[in-house]
Amino acid sequence: MEWLDQVKWDERGLIPVIAQEASTGDVLMFAWMNREALQRTASEGRAIYFSRSRNKLWAKGEESGHVQTVHEIRLDCDHDVILLRVTQLGHEPGIACHTGRHSCFYQRLHEGAWQPCEPVLKDPSTFYK
Amino acid sequence: MEWLDQVKWDERGLIPVIAQEASTGDVLMFAWMNREALQRTASEGRAIYFSRSRNKLWAKGEESGHVQTVHEIRLDCDHDVILLRVTQLGHEPGIACHTGRHSCFYQRLHEGAWQPCEPVLKDPSTFYK
Repeated sequence: MEWLDQVKWDERGLIPVIAQEASTGDVLMFAWMNREALQRTASEGRAIYFSRSRNKLWAKGEESGHVQTVHEIRLDCDHDVILLRVTQLGHEPGIACHTGRHSCFYQRLHEGAWQPCEPVLKDPSTFYK
Repeated sequence: MEWLDQVKWDERGLIPVIAQEASTGDVLMFAWMNREALQRTASEGRAIYFSRSRNKLWAKGEESGHVQTVHEIRLDCDHDVILLRVTQLGHEPGIACHTGRHSCFYQRLHEGAWQPCEPVLKDPSTFYK
């Protein structure tokens, strides 16, 4: 598939991926994909990433139920970063973070320290068995 | 500085950075920072990245005039990705991309092909000498 060949995979065969909530514009999370993850994300319409720590594909929400429907896949000018426009399912408002927060980017630099600035919406022990 | 020590730098001493326009929520670009770039971004209030290809610091807009004012610096749950909330200066609407477009993510996957879906706002030859 030509569109997959046009992606510039890094030396590990991966590409960085930003997931943005389509309805709010919130940046929810950042992850990585390999060729198979991107191909399946496009064909299945839901986010499938590649876990570098576990060295395997990881369907977002497979354990937590917090699946991401993918509305749009964008590629940047250098062909080496992907932006997904998603709907975060499984909770309202959406929970993308494994800490039970809406977004993974919940720590803000304030007066020389990282401070949490988003609430935990759901106890992670209830969605990770 | 403790907040800089709490960042998980990768094996090259870098961290991925997402720049999001504060006013619109648009994801403008993706780049990298080293420790000095992040420290200076925080102290100077404007985006300073690290260029992997040129192996040196790169003050966004130093050549193009398309400087990014930084309103907020966020860190993700794993301490290994930064999200900046910025105002993109130098043009209205803001131009973050070296192609003269608003955002670097201007190519959309459509019917199995990457298709440009954002206009060139300004000819890059007018801001790169």
